[in-house]
Parts: sequence; structure tokens; C-alpha cells
Amino acid sequence: MPKSALTVRSLEMKMGLLVEEDFGLKFTPLVVIELDKNANEEAIKWLVKRIWDKKEHGGAELMIEPFLMSSSDENHNLFLVGASTKRLLLAAEEIGIVKECEDGSMRAFTCSNRNMFKDFKDGGDSFFSMAECQYIIKLQLDSLRAINERIIPGYPQIKLYPGKSILRRLMSKGILVQYFPLHDKEELKKLSYSWYSKFQLSYQPLDDIRHYFGEAISLYFGFLEYLTFALIPMALIGIPYYLFAWEDFEKYTLFATFNLVWSTVLLEVWKRCCASLAYRWGTLIRKKEFEEPRPGFHGVLGINPVTGREEPVYSSFKRQLRIYLVSVPFVLLCLYFSLYIMMIYFDMENWALGYHEEEQSVWSSLVLFLPSIIYAIVIEVLNRIYRYAAEFLTGWENHRLESSYQNHLVLKVLVFNFLNCFASLFYIAFVLHDMKLLRQSLATLLITSQILNQIVEAFLPYWLQKRRNKKVHKKLGRTSMDKELPWAEQVKLEADMDTYLGTFDDYLELFLQFGYVSLFSCVFPLAAVLAVLNNVTEIYSDALKMCQVFKRPFSQPAANIGVWQLAFETMSVISVVTNCALLGMSPQVKSLFQESDTNLILLVLAVEHILLAFKFILMFVIPDVPKDIRTQLAKLEFESLEALKQQQTQRAAESLKEDREEFKLKAS
Amino acid sequence: MPKSALTVRSLEMKMGLLVEEDFGLKFTPLVVIELDKNANEEAIKWLVKRIWDKKEHGGAELMIEPFLMSSSDENHNLFLVGASTKRLLLAAEEIGIVKECEDGSMRAFTCSNRNMFKDFKDGGDSFFSMAECQYIIKLQLDSLRAINERIIPGYPQIKLYPGKSILRRLMSKGILVQYFPLHDKEELKKLSYSWYSKFQLSYQPLDDIRHYFGEAISLYFGFLEYLTFALIPMALIGIPYYLFAWEDFEKYTLFATFNLVWSTVLLEVWKRCCASLAYRWGTLIRKKEFEEPRPGFHGVLGINPVTGREEPVYSSFKRQLRIYLVSVPFVLLCLYFSLYIMMIYFDMENWALGYHEEEQSVWSSLVLFLPSIIYAIVIEVLNRIYRYAAEFLTGWENHRLESSYQNHLVLKVLVFNFLNCFASLFYIAFVLHDMKLLRQSLATLLITSQILNQIVEAFLPYWLQKRRNKKVHKKLGRTSMDKELPWAEQVKLEADMDTYLGTFDDYLELFLQFGYVSLFSCVFPLAAVLAVLNNVTEIYSDALKMCQVFKRPFSQPAANIGVWQLAFETMSVISVVTNCALLGMSPQVKSLFQESDTNLILLVLAVEHILLAFKFILMFVIPDVPKDIRTQLAKLEFESLEALKQQQTQRAAESLKEDREEFKLKAS
Repeated sequence: MPKSALTVRSLEMKMGLLVEEDFGLKFTPLVVIELDKNANEEAIKWLVKRIWDKKEHGGAELMIEPFLMSSSDENHNLFLVGASTKRLLLAAEEIGIVKECEDGSMRAFTCSNRNMFKDFKDGGDSFFSMAECQYIIKLQLDSLRAINERIIPGYPQIKLYPGKSILRRLMSKGILVQYFPLHDKEELKKLSYSWYSKFQLSYQPLDDIRHYFGEAISLYFGFLEYLTFALIPMALIGIPYYLFAWEDFEKYTLFATFNLVWSTVLLEVWKRCCASLAYRWGTLIRKKEFEEPRPGFHGVLGINPVTGREEPVYSSFKRQLRIYLVSVPFVLLCLYFSLYIMMIYFDMENWALGYHEEEQSVWSSLVLFLPSIIYAIVIEVLNRIYRYAAEFLTGWENHRLESSYQNHLVLKVLVFNFLNCFASLFYIAFVLHDMKLLRQSLATLLITSQILNQIVEAFLPYWLQKRRNKKVHKKLGRTSMDKELPWAEQVKLEADMDTYLGTFDDYLELFLQFGYVSLFSCVFPLAAVLAVLNNVTEIYSDALKMCQVFKRPFSQPAANIGVWQLAFETMSVISVVTNCALLGMSPQVKSLFQESDTNLILLVLAVEHILLAFKFILMFVIPDVPKDIRTQLAKLEFESLEALKQQQTQRAAESLKEDREEFKLKAS
Repeated sequence: MPKSALTVRSLEMKMGLLVEEDFGLKFTPLVVIELDKNANEEAIKWLVKRIWDKKEHGGAELMIEPFLMSSSDENHNLFLVGASTKRLLLAAEEIGIVKECEDGSMRAFTCSNRNMFKDFKDGGDSFFSMAECQYIIKLQLDSLRAINERIIPGYPQIKLYPGKSILRRLMSKGILVQYFPLHDKEELKKLSYSWYSKFQLSYQPLDDIRHYFGEAISLYFGFLEYLTFALIPMALIGIPYYLFAWEDFEKYTLFATFNLVWSTVLLEVWKRCCASLAYRWGTLIRKKEFEEPRPGFHGVLGINPVTGREEPVYSSFKRQLRIYLVSVPFVLLCLYFSLYIMMIYFDMENWALGYHEEEQSVWSSLVLFLPSIIYAIVIEVLNRIYRYAAEFLTGWENHRLESSYQNHLVLKVLVFNFLNCFASLFYIAFVLHDMKLLRQSLATLLITSQILNQIVEAFLPYWLQKRRNKKVHKKLGRTSMDKELPWAEQVKLEADMDTYLGTFDDYLELFLQFGYVSLFSCVFPLAAVLAVLNNVTEIYSDALKMCQVFKRPFSQPAANIGVWQLAFETMSVISVVTNCALLGMSPQVKSLFQESDTNLILLVLAVEHILLAFKFILMFVIPDVPKDIRTQLAKLEFESLEALKQQQTQRAAESLKEDREEFKLKAS
């Protein structure tokens, strides 16, 4: 670290201490900011000043301290950020964080009503969880905006405009490397013990997970657990079908119908569970934040019609053009290409079969596996290339909001993955009409994808992280891994950990698994069993991954699983169609309608339409929010309306009084 | 009128005048309250006192005056109600009425910001339309609640409890006959001139209609007009198909596909139009009112979990039992019965045909018409009986809220009407496979129902009303109808007019018409033409009905057409299925697939699924609210968030300052 930096920083330190004295509070570092090690001193000084500056002067009013480490380590340029309890309470009110009251109801926290809330004591020191504090600090940092600055001090080439988020600009220019919340070793140990260390059958500690990782991640684990339990009835019913090969018509239909109705019910009931969780966690009634433009968004400076602020604007017509003239054709082309490769695979398969029949040697029987292996590798490679292309294209579409970027990305990736995973199965089922091959492919695909996923996703990173840990321990000259690292080393270790990129891939995996289970459920009744087994281990490996492998992610408020609910519902609609078609095509059913194909098709058609109609009616009839929570929500609404009314009646009475006095004055 | 009443009323009069003096404002009667002519004097006195009492004392703070009429007329016991401008302004703020600002944006009216609003001048005397004033007064009257009264004075047998709406109780016991808003002859004349008197092609004056009748009725006319325009392309394309009998496969498919896609697009675009209208009328952003229990709701006194007030409660489990164990089976039984009658009709039709073929006489050719006539009469009778039964059953289900009562009633009536109107057509199409008969029945049903409806709905009541008017004129000894009635007679005349029962029947008629047009559109392309012609006259007859036949209805705020949007969308989904089936069954198409029925069915099936998928994608892709209105809504949200933030920053700064002072105090 250059010398001049230290002097600047000790000055900042002093200022930091001043702020501390002012509030008379202790500094607990919560968030780490990593700057580029060659960052300009002037810029650092300016940033630090802006972070601890008073809110009235446009600062974030947070505490910041340089992280002083042994001089041997020159790779990091870290700052620790914290905040006083008072500042956190005020910011929480501003953000609208919802907490539980003494009477068990959930309300938006306000400082004036602080004593109404359940765990508010000792001036609110431990009122918010660490994850909440970190989330609050993140929002404060994100909302640090340029006031009159036109450039970043020290970097005359990096432009700013009033209202531009400073951290986003610094990050996009590489001056800010990252900012992340710190782990709490103590709490993490407790959490991991109750979550995955003890081997016993129990629910996941969802509240604790939420307490440590936030709502979005906890909802993912909640959904994973829910889905696992929901698949158990399907698995239990599937086992005898598999064991005794019950393939007569009535039993078959019964099983398929049960599956279809069940998958609708389970998705609807999940919405209710989700609402319960979100209510308990305070995200259901939380007011929506005003969404800022995403970091990568660019455009000509103009006036935002909503905020009236000067900021980059980009014509939505141009975006539509890009979407419909470039992205959509590109995606369609990719889909076509993927289908083309699938056809080549089937040709190769045929060729290998022919070759094996001709030669009948050991070599030729090995050749039989070749097409599958090549296809699997090609698919994996294609998936990865496509993912990059999709990310690039969606970025190029230049969406203003992160949410709309995410929606477009999810849609692109989902369509392609769906086709890649299921096209060959559809082809086998509805073109080749080979039920045996379908069952075989389904089993192979399901099992291999599950095993591969768990290795790539959790155990490999875990092993790498373990090795890195060992290295650090070695460097410090320790032999035992049990002892805790000194705090300074721990911070550095966390800074080097991989970043968790969100729940996207985890949900995608579940989505494809749900597809394998529901699309062809009547052909391979064991799919649900495999899915349940996989999910049980998935919970453990995902938990391990969250606790041990990745940097702690910032808590993310969420009231539902968002676009994935729609994706799962769409899948369950498609599965009605495929299952009805499969039933109609099964030889057992066909033998019942020997005299006329038409009657069979019409019957299947009628069943399909009835099931679909029943599905939509079910969706409509089952309320999305449980009754007690609806009551709670209505109560909140009623209270706020009543408060408003009372306020107005009071004001009206006052105004009438004034009028009367004025009248008297005039009269006299 | 008994003598004692007059003295009581003149006392009230005096009190009313006192209130007037107090505000120094003129009394314009807006609403009429009609009490039973034998109503107890004590009860009247109490009611009048409650209406003019101050808000702080639990009154409505309105002006009320007995309507003194010639002693010859003993049938009415009327009171006129009005309010001061100040009272109206305060109440409008309380209700959250949204008005246009100077800058063209829509905002909830508040007295403190009154000068921001566009038409606010002269203290706000003409700021609200008469319909708005009447609506405000209605809400004030409705929210008049018992405080400590346990009975209605003068009626010891009529119980009250704190918080019970007084007017609802009086009405359910027959003491209050009705309360209705007065017509404004001047404005009505202007409106009817621009609406239906001049015979020229122009849009309806929707804003004026809304101004006079409120949003719900205006939206109905907006939808009627929109649907008429939207049907024109279908009508135009349908004409050559009808004239030249283009029945080859490609042209047929083209027409049907166009219709199906068009019907989706038109319903989606309507949502956008509706949002535009609702935004302009201020109902889109209006905060929802807290719904009160509906008048007929009864139960044991208990604590409402939402409001915490003592009021009748009824277990929702019992309601569910009543719905699923009584109502649903009853409806199913009715549906079965209706189908049974349809089968009898077809038997009779067969018998008549056989009879005619045997006899070949004039008498026997008349017999041919007999079954249709009997069936039409029976259907009409059944519809009416069923409607009563549905109303009774839905009332017996004891729904707490008017909205849920309405939803259950609409659903019951809709299902039955759908079956009654379309079952015979479905039977002809899909069981008898007789396309010629289908076309013929469709045309007959459509035309007769349209003609009958217009006569029963508009012209008959109009004629009756005209006759009544004449009688009044005669009684007053006038010969010319042109001169206006004296005001007092006008009030009495209006009290005797029929009450408009809401838009239900009008929407139902449109819904069935939409069914005739879309369900079998590819069989009878002229349906759209007939529908357009009918709707043009329907606009005129409905307008006439609203302006001349019925009592003025209270304005009803509405932001959309509610459950009807869903009903129309469901119809358009069903029409995809029926049209695809009809296409597949047409002889022209069948001749193309002579070798195999199976291929034909599979093709039709594929087309149907693609169309349905396309439909859902379209629904998803077309945003429900136009972009400029979304911007306006976002702007409003942003402003309120910013205001809140500023308020909080200010408060935070103050609180910090206080803390510092306290600290200094402690230090010194």
C-alpha cells in the first residue's frame, strides 16, 4: 500500500472516530468494500468522504475504516463499513422494513412506534439481524448519488451526472472491485449445525436461513423442500406401478390423472405456503421499492418522464426492434440448430446400431455408446455457449430495469434448455413411438443429469474451497484446521471466495427435474422416486455450498419465487397434453379401441380438454393467500384507512372552527 | 300527511336553516329520501337529526328538508338532501376522489392542495359534477351508523348495535322505501341531444355520460361501442364469405383463424382502452374503499377480526357447505334438466317432421313450427325461474360482501344461460353433424333474441313511461307535452319511475351475442354483421332507457368491467375449441383427408393447440395498461415515495438534533 494512502486514511479514521464519538456507539464492521489496488488516492478520499458524510450533505452517513493488514499482502485494498444503530433504524424506516409487533401482527417499522415492536429493546441494538443490517447498508451505498460532480475526482475521463449512482459507475469502470457482506462465523456454525450437520429427518430451519441469507435464498430452499415433500405421494404411488408393471388401462389412467391433478394442486398450494412465509418474513406487505436503472443500462442523457431527473434514456421502440428483429430470430435459429443436432444424433444412433449388428464385436458394442456420449457433450457445450449468447443479447437489448433484464434472460434460457433437454424425448415418444426407448432415455438423462449437477455444483467448489482454506492455514503455520482463523485472515479469505450468482441455476435445475417427472410420468413412474432422492441430497449439497463455498450474498427481499411460478405452471399444463397423448398411444389402450382409431383419439381429446378445464378451475378456486393472512392484510388496510379518516375529520373540524372565527371577526 | 308530522318537520326545517346560516350557503337538493308514509314520527325525527348532526357527534352533517307537496297527494313521504360545498370537499378528500390537476396529471383531491386542481375556482362550487356530489352524499348516508342506540326510536322491535348502518336497517325493515339522486333536466337534455337525438355517425360522448351517470355505466357504453367497432372487420370479411359461399378449405381456415386471433386481440386491447378511460376518469388510481357487509347479510353478533368491531359474523365453513352441498348440486340439476328439455325438443322436432311427411297438409306444415315455439317459450320461462332461484340461493349462501355475492350470482346465471342458449347449437353441430340446420338455428336464435331484447328492454318501458308522463300532464290540466313540469311534480314523477338494476342484464346480452358470433363464426359468417347492426340500435335504445325510462342511478366508480372481462375471455377460449372442431367436421375439409380420419383429427388437434398457445402468449405479451399511463402511474408512485423519504429525512435530522441537545444537557 503506498505511503500517502495511509496518511489519508488515518485522517479518514479520525473523521470516522469523530462520527463515532458523536453518536457514542461501537463500530461493528458489516460490509467490505474492495477497491482496485491501483485506485487513485483522490478518488478514494472522495468516496470515503461521501460515505461518512451527513445525509443532509448528500452522504450515506455510514462508518468506514480502512482494513489494515500485514504489509506482506499487497493484493487487497479493503475498507470496512458499518453504521450506528440509530442510522440503521432510520434507514430501516425509510426502506420500509417490516417487523413483528408485540401483538403478533406485522407492520412497517417506524422509529416513532419502535416500542410497539416485539424484539425492540436496549435502544434497538440487536433489533435487526446482521443480514438486515447488511442489506440496509447495501441500499445506502447504492443510493449514494453524484450531486454536482461531473467527473470522478482523480479520473477526469470518467463522467458523472447529477443523480448517477456513484458505486455503480465506479464498479463499471473497475475502480470498485466488489462489495460484499461479512460472514458471522458464530452464527454460521449454529446455522450449519441445525441445517445440514446433524443427520436426522427434520424440516429445514427456514427462519434461520432467512435470518442469515435473506428471503430470496430461503424461499428457494423452502420451495426445494416443499417440492420434495409434494413429490412423495407421486413417488409412493409410482413404486408399485414400477415393481408390478401394472400396465392395464384403468390403472394407468388413474395414475396419470392423479399426477396431473396433483401437480396443479401442489403448485397452487405452494402459492399459499409462499404467502404465509412471506407474511411471516415481512416481505408480503412491504412497499415496493422504486427500481433504479440497472448498472449496464446506457443511453443518451435525457429527462426521465417518471422522476423528472436527468438520466440516460433509451427509446423502448429501439429495444423492441432489437428484441423482435434480432433476439427472437436468433433464439429461433438456435432452437432449429439444436433440433438439427438432435436429428444427427438419431442418425448416428442408427448408424451405430447398424454397425454393431454387422460386426457383433466388443469394439462395435462400445461404439453403441459413442453417439450418446458425443450428444451429451455437444448438448452441454451448446448450453454453455447459448447461455453466454443469451446474456450478451439480453444485455445488448439494453433493458432499463434489472427485473425486465432478468425476465428476458430467463425466458431465453428456459426455452432453449427445455428444447435441449426434452426434444429428444419428444421425438422418441411422438415420432418413433418407442416407449421402451423413451423409458430408458428418460432414466439415463434424469440420473446422469442429477449426478453431474451435484458434482459440478457443490462438491467440486467445496473441494476447491477446502484446499484454499488449507493453504491459508499452512501459510499461518498452523497444523489443525479446527481452530478459527484470526479475524483479519478470515476477511481476506472471504474476499477471495467465489460469488454466489443467485438462485437462477438452482431453480433451472429444479424446473428441468419437474419436467422429467411430470411430462412423461405415466411412462416412467419411478421418476418421482429418483427426484425425491435427488432433492434430499440436493438440500444438503446446496446448504453446504451456501455456507462453505461462496461469499455471503447480500440478503434479497422476495415475496414469491417470481417468474418460476409461471414456468412451473406452464410445465404442468404442457404435461397434461403429453401425458394424454402418451396414454392414447400406449398399446394397452390401443388394444381396447381396435376397431377405430378415431374414437380413441376423440376420447383422449375429450379427457385432455376436461383435465385442462379442471386445472384452470382449480387454479381459480384455490385462493392464493390463506384466509388468516388475508384477514391480517385486510386489518392493516382497514387500520390505515381509519387513521386517515380520523386525521381528516380532525383537520376538517379545525378548519370549520377557523372559518367560524373568521366569520365572527368579519361580523364584529 | 298527519298534522303532527308537519310541526316536527318545520322544527327540522328551522334546524336545517340554522345549519345553512352557519355556513352561509345555498341549499341545492341532490338526493331524495322516501320514507314509508306510515313511518313513526319519532323515528323520522331521529333520522333527520342524525343526518344533519355534526360529524363529531356521529352525524352525516348534511342538509335535509321535508318535501312539501300539495295535500292531495298522500302517497309520498319525501325528504330532500343536500350538502354545503365545504362539506362536499371534505368528504371528497375522505373518500379519495381523484381529479385532474392543472398539469394534466390525475391526483387524489385534498383540501389543502385544492388550488392545484384544474377546475377549482370560486371556492369549489362547481368543482364536482352533480353525479359526484350525489355519490358523495350517498356514501355519507350509507356510513351513518348507530352509536349507542340499541333500537330504532319508535320501533322497539327493530334492534340496532353500535356500528350498524342505519339506512340499511331502515331499508330492510321497510321504513325507508328508497333513496335516489335527482335528475338534472337541463343537463339531461344536453346529454341526450349529443348522445342519441342527432342522427349522425359519431362516437358516444363517453365523458359526458360519465359526468352524468358515473363510471360503471359509462364503461358499459364504452365497451358496447368498442365491441361494435371491433366486430366491423369480422363483419366486413364475413360478407363476401356469405355472398359467394366461399367454402374451400384455405379460405375457411383463414377466416376462422382471423376471427380467433382477432377476438383475443380485441379483448386485450379493450383492457388497454379501459385503463385509459379509467385513468382519465380517476378511478384507476383511486384507493379501494373498505367494503361493508351487504344489506342482506345476517349472523350472530361477534367480533369482526379485521375491524375489531362488533358485528354479525357467519362462519365461512358453513357458507362453503351451503355452496358445495346445495348450490352446486342444484345448479348441476338445473343444467341436467335443461339438457333434458332440449332432448324432448329434438324428439318433438322429429315427431313433427314425421307427421308432416305423413300428412303433407297445411295443418301439418304449421305443426312443424310448434316445437320451436314451445321450446322458445319454455326456455324463456326456465331462464326467469332460474334467475329467481339463483338470486334466492346466492342470498341464502349469506355472503358478507356485495362483490362476492355478485360474483357467485353472475357465475350461476352465466353457466345456465350459456347452456340454455348454446346447448341446442352444440347438439346440432357435434351430435347431429347437420351444418345446414346449425346455420339456420344460429340465424333464427340470433335475430329473434336481438329483436325481443330491444322490445322488452327499452321500447316497452319507454312506452309505459310516456303514458305515465301523459297522465301527470293531464292531471295538471295541460295539453302540451313540451312544457316542463313544475319541479315538485318532476320529483314525484321520478320517485315513481322504475329503478335501474345495474348493468348485469346489458352485459349478459352482449356476452351471449359475443357467443353467437365467435363460437360458430366459421359456419355463419353473417353473425358479425347482424351483431354490428344490433349494437348500433342497442346503443340508441339503451341510451333512451337510461335517460327517459329509469330513475337516475347513483354513480358507481369502476376501473374495469370486472368479472365480464373474464367471462368474455373464457368465451373466446371455448370458441377456439368449437371452431377448430367445426372446421375439422366440414365436408370440404373431410374430402381432403379421405384416406384417413386420424390424420385429419391430429391436424385439427395440432392447430387447436397452437392457436390456444398463441392466444395465451398474446395475452401475456400485450401489456394491460398503455405505456403513457404506466409512466403516469409510476410518476405518482415515485412522488409519494420521495415525499415520504423527504419527510423522514427531515424527521431524522430533527431527532438527531434533539439527541445532541440532550447529550449536551447531560454533559453540562
